[in-house]
Amino acid sequence: MPEVYKKDDCRLDMRPDEGLPRELREEVGRIVGTCRTDGCFDHISQLPIPSRESVVEIVKLGRRILFPGYFTQERIDPVGLEYHLGRMVVRLYKLLSTQVAWAVRHDCHRYEQACSHCQEEGGKVALDFIRAIPDLRSILATDTIAAYEGDPASSSYDEIIFSYPGLYAIMVQRMAHLLWEAKVPLLPRIMTELAHSKTGIDIHPGASIGESFFIDHGTGVVVGETTEIGKRVRLYQGVTLGALSVSRDQVEELRRHKRHPTIGDDVIIYSGATILGGRTVVGSGSIIGGNVWITDSVPPNTKVLLKSPEQIVIGRED
Amino acid sequence: MPEVYKKDDCRLDMRPDEGLPRELREEVGRIVGTCRTDGCFDHISQLPIPSRESVVEIVKLGRRILFPGYFTQERIDPVGLEYHLGRMVVRLYKLLSTQVAWAVRHDCHRYEQACSHCQEEGGKVALDFIRAIPDLRSILATDTIAAYEGDPASSSYDEIIFSYPGLYAIMVQRMAHLLWEAKVPLLPRIMTELAHSKTGIDIHPGASIGESFFIDHGTGVVVGETTEIGKRVRLYQGVTLGALSVSRDQVEELRRHKRHPTIGDDVIIYSGATILGGRTVVGSGSIIGGNVWITDSVPPNTKVLLKSPEQIVIGRED
Amino acid sequence: MPEVYKKDDCRLDMRPDEGLPRELREEVGRIVGTCRTDGCFDHISQLPIPSRESVVEIVKLGRRILFPGYFTQERIDPVGLEYHLGRMVVRLYKLLSTQVAWAVRHDCHRYEQACSHCQEEGGKVALDFIRAIPDLRSILATDTIAAYEGDPASSSYDEIIFSYPGLYAIMVQRMAHLLWEAKVPLLPRIMTELAHSKTGIDIHPGASIGESFFIDHGTGVVVGETTEIGKRVRLYQGVTLGALSVSRDQVEELRRHKRHPTIGDDVIIYSGATILGGRTVVGSGSIIGGNVWITDSVPPNTKVLLKSPEQIVIGRED
Repeated sequence: MPEVYKKDDCRLDMRPDEGLPRELREEVGRIVGTCRTDGCFDHISQLPIPSRESVVEIVKLGRRILFPGYFTQERIDPVGLEYHLGRMVVRLYKLLSTQVAWAVRHDCHRYEQACSHCQEEGGKVALDFIRAIPDLRSILATDTIAAYEGDPASSSYDEIIFSYPGLYAIMVQRMAHLLWEAKVPLLPRIMTELAHSKTGIDIHPGASIGESFFIDHGTGVVVGETTEIGKRVRLYQGVTLGALSVSRDQVEELRRHKRHPTIGDDVIIYSGATILGGRTVVGSGSIIGGNVWITDSVPPNTKVLLKSPEQIVIGRED
Repeated sequence: MPEVYKKDDCRLDMRPDEGLPRELREEVGRIVGTCRTDGCFDHISQLPIPSRESVVEIVKLGRRILFPGYFTQERIDPVGLEYHLGRMVVRLYKLLSTQVAWAVRHDCHRYEQACSHCQEEGGKVALDFIRAIPDLRSILATDTIAAYEGDPASSSYDEIIFSYPGLYAIMVQRMAHLLWEAKVPLLPRIMTELAHSKTGIDIHPGASIGESFFIDHGTGVVVGETTEIGKRVRLYQGVTLGALSVSRDQVEELRRHKRHPTIGDDVIIYSGATILGGRTVVGSGSIIGGNVWITDSVPPNTKVLLKSPEQIVIGRED
Repeated sequence: MPEVYKKDDCRLDMRPDEGLPRELREEVGRIVGTCRTDGCFDHISQLPIPSRESVVEIVKLGRRILFPGYFTQERIDPVGLEYHLGRMVVRLYKLLSTQVAWAVRHDCHRYEQACSHCQEEGGKVALDFIRAIPDLRSILATDTIAAYEGDPASSSYDEIIFSYPGLYAIMVQRMAHLLWEAKVPLLPRIMTELAHSKTGIDIHPGASIGESFFIDHGTGVVVGETTEIGKRVRLYQGVTLGALSVSRDQVEELRRHKRHPTIGDDVIIYSGATILGGRTVVGSGSIIGGNVWITDSVPPNTKVLLKSPEQIVIGRED
């Protein structure tokens, strides 16, 4: 066999006489072995585990039901609407009830409890979720209008519904928050991380957020688990509503405590601002300037701005 | 029936005897009802609406035509090139002319005008777009070279074409900008938000940007609608070229006005810098340091840096 | 023909009598022409080029093998585990050996060398990669535990494995780093840019990172090519471990030099902090506060914080 391939060989992905190397079998054995040690994570079990793919589909279905006609190739007319929505709602019920049941069962199993209620719980949560859709639609309409009114670059509601990442992120968070309140494990966070991945906006499913919420641009926004946000609040890219720093030994006692700020109504927080701490309250009507750093409460109707831009301006010499 | 499932039951997604809950039908009715109130958004109509999936395919096709041979599993040799490109161009024409026609028709419908020109407009815009491809290829070549010359970590042009998010974002924006200039509704923004979602780089389709443009890393970059950028400009992650703050009543009058800065030739803007305002001009050859905040013009050949890092350094006590 | 379409026409994507415009053929010719000039990039060749789609599948397979049972719709029990893993490992071997061979061959071709070793190299690298899986599993277990211990909002290891972007990003980077060390061209960067796209976390495949690494939230994090990070380090969103500014003529000499910082063990770096320069060392046990800007070394066990928040607080007048 020649050491240098002829030009023709380049077209071949693998020479016909080349099989798999023998060592592969041995390596599979080693990998199987490491699944049985404590230092690794796996889920080797007949028990089902929630599926990311299904959660992706739940979010897609949710969006189609919440904004009918926008995210489908089909054209939906008033006569066919009921069938169209009915079909999607049934599909959503089946997927969601199954995934909730699996998530609950997975949790029971983890804590070695018998799972007597998983299936019932799945059906109940899925039905409650579907019951909440009309209210979700209303509050998302206020978010859509807030985007139009808050952004001079927006040219129509349709543009916002089709393309604004802030609307997508709050839509997913509002869905996830319903499941969070129903104490469903795993799924709410998978949902919001899906939105985080698509938008760069990381809103924890635990955060409670009022109507007419608008995030412009949004990349880098972080809204922590125990944040409370009032009505008509507007955030820009890179805003953090986070926790104060945590030393390693405090982590356990802090789980589930209020660690993130409370934001009043009609607050605007400009890009890059950071507001930290569970006791920090930003009063209604206040404006927080770009890059401002806040760890104490701010009274209502207050403006907080960076003092003077401490910058050096010099002729360039390179 | 036992309260605790036997192990075998765990394998079932849903018990066979369990159907859909009766209440589901009622809930579908309620959801249909809310589609007929004013407080919600839907698109229930025989009229078509642009499709996100098609826009995704348009961008993919565009990339394959602009960088032939890089993003396809087929191998393309010089003989087959014309057929390969021809097939893709035809597909692009069909998709784009249809989506433009739908977007224009959707807009006409919104303003209750008769749509006498939608189809013609679609064909015309799609043909003009295809005509612009050779020029797009040339300017994207300058962007690719700028990335290689601006980033010591780059090891080849191919690496940049395959993997640099900054090149992807400017490629999509340059395509979207053509449609923006042709006054196509909806599609340009859907396109740039697709790139925003993939890269964290949010460049509005309205921004006008010169050749040899390079964004390194890019996450968090925001370039607003009326921004103008010269030649050979380099941006780093987290740079905002934005608008000054807007009070709620000013939004309407600001739509379509120049609200975002003008950046000269050969400017470098380091990570986290913020430059705001429609009258702000950064002169050619200037360098804006990391985290700098600018709301006034900067003369040509100027360096702007953060003064002294006002920081406390203390021995740790925890 | 009527100028205004009848309602029925709206349903048609394209009128039946409307074909493709004749000019299209000419435009295809012009586009083909521009592929033969120097100012554009294309890959017109019988030689294969690495495929992004295959790299996406390699990363997916890698994740399924590293965390068995989590990212598959199949349920895997202890008996079937070997077959399940074996099938995936074989698939990974085939894909990876082919893509590595293509990447190496592509590079040889670029430098006009004969490619006598591409195929062998592909098989060798793929086998070494598979051999490294047990160690990868162990170090990723330390990363998973570090996330749980570092984030009070985390509620289980499963939640972290399913949804934490920081774990995804470091998993991909640790895989890419293996290929980087084997000097495979193109693929490592395609892999980490895939993770960057999904998470907003941009870790160069060249960075070397110790065990128990945790990035919280993560959007906007940049870790440069020659960064070295110790054990048990925690980063928050928006942290840059980057290079000092580079003038245009220095780029060439800087390629492959140490340009990015070294971070000791047990360091915490809060959101928005920037640490620059190849000679900058952050000593073990130090804490870098939010938004801090560092270009000089920091001794061990030191806290660096922003001095006082130079901010103006004023009653709002608008």
